[in-house]
Amino acid sequence: MTNPTAAMLVIGDEILSGRTRDSNMHHLAQRLTEHGIRLLEARVVADDHAGIIAAVNDLRARFDHVFTSGGIGPTHDDITADAIAAAFGVAITHRADAMARLQAHYDRAGVPFNEARQRMARIPDGAALIDNPVSTAPGFTLGNVHVMAGVPNIFEAMLAGVIPTLTGGAPLLSQSLRINRGEGEIASPFGALAADYPDLSMGSYPFIQNGAHGTNLVIRGTDAARLDQAMVRLAALFA
Amino acid sequence: MTNPTAAMLVIGDEILSGRTRDSNMHHLAQRLTEHGIRLLEARVVADDHAGIIAAVNDLRARFDHVFTSGGIGPTHDDITADAIAAAFGVAITHRADAMARLQAHYDRAGVPFNEARQRMARIPDGAALIDNPVSTAPGFTLGNVHVMAGVPNIFEAMLAGVIPTLTGGAPLLSQSLRINRGEGEIASPFGALAADYPDLSMGSYPFIQNGAHGTNLVIRGTDAARLDQAMVRLAALFA
Repeated sequence: MTNPTAAMLVIGDEILSGRTRDSNMHHLAQRLTEHGIRLLEARVVADDHAGIIAAVNDLRARFDHVFTSGGIGPTHDDITADAIAAAFGVAITHRADAMARLQAHYDRAGVPFNEARQRMARIPDGAALIDNPVSTAPGFTLGNVHVMAGVPNIFEAMLAGVIPTLTGGAPLLSQSLRINRGEGEIASPFGALAADYPDLSMGSYPFIQNGAHGTNLVIRGTDAARLDQAMVRLAALFA
Repeated sequence: MTNPTAAMLVIGDEILSGRTRDSNMHHLAQRLTEHGIRLLEARVVADDHAGIIAAVNDLRARFDHVFTSGGIGPTHDDITADAIAAAFGVAITHRADAMARLQAHYDRAGVPFNEARQRMARIPDGAALIDNPVSTAPGFTLGNVHVMAGVPNIFEAMLAGVIPTLTGGAPLLSQSLRINRGEGEIASPFGALAADYPDLSMGSYPFIQNGAHGTNLVIRGTDAARLDQAMVRLAALFA
């Protein structure tokens, strides 16, 4: 498959401590799959300057796109923008257009646009802003790295603005068959079928329901006709 | 903090395609935090031999423990055990004790111990088995890498057996304060407090409820007295 590739970088001690359950990864995975971009890796790293830089530089070299979530708020533990600037070796400043958006937002709300809130206008040189329709403070795209908020509804709103600007590939299609047999019973014929379709990806995902073993068999690919053909053979095997 | 460190490696196309939502990371994070082991990174990679090897070798060199989930079943897409063996440069064979456990399990169930099921007895040389009280097929520990199943109830049961065997550190404590103010309002005094307690980790996590901004302030550390002292000051700041 020649679809564009992507990685995600989740930045946040709160995920790694078990305090918060990440949901942005699952959302991103679904949106990218629809858009024909293959998410091939996801990472969660701590709020650590050097650690973020190392992860960003590794991922942006290996994938067409990197999507980050978390660490772009006004508090001392929000260090993502500085780390991204350092990763690219560019300066970071309070940018005029971001300052103007935030100033207008806080003026409307009647609260002071204080120093902490002004931190959210710090954008690495050369970046394009990502709109934040929820709470104004923008994300940004620098090179192939898309930097977004960690709060799920803000992440989702930012991503909805970014996705249409990206060149997608053929949609990544999948079909699945749920059977009431364990993996050990179907592994051999399923493996043989997978070998006949090297252009498709076939996976099996076991479950236990009411004490009985079952399996979801999933076939993924971009050629709908091939997928249909393989599903017919799969259904015949396990009917 | 001198607590032992850990990373997680989730292996599975089904997470990256958005078909399945991972829950093992959150469970592991909570269990490790209780046991005084700091989870510092988590990764999700695809069912790809070379990719798994590269990730395992990177993580096992950088952290005291690596916990993997997924890819140890009987089907063709279960390639974790082989990749771990390759990462360590050791052979992998159908091991006698794992074969015996599985043979007894399938004899009791009255189903054939076929070639696919026998694949689950393939264990890298030098590994110690991890018990699977749910469905028998064992995980294993090789060096500092603990290889477990991806099905959540099996992952959790295996982990429950592994954790007590690991040297923990002082429990990683946390206390939190929920306030009805946005981050931008509290960032400056909260940052000053954090600077007074370099031995503690302080984070702020914004939320929006009924259209109003609020923030959860979290302090983490291993010294309960210091944590209490900082929380008293935090409460005084934002009472």
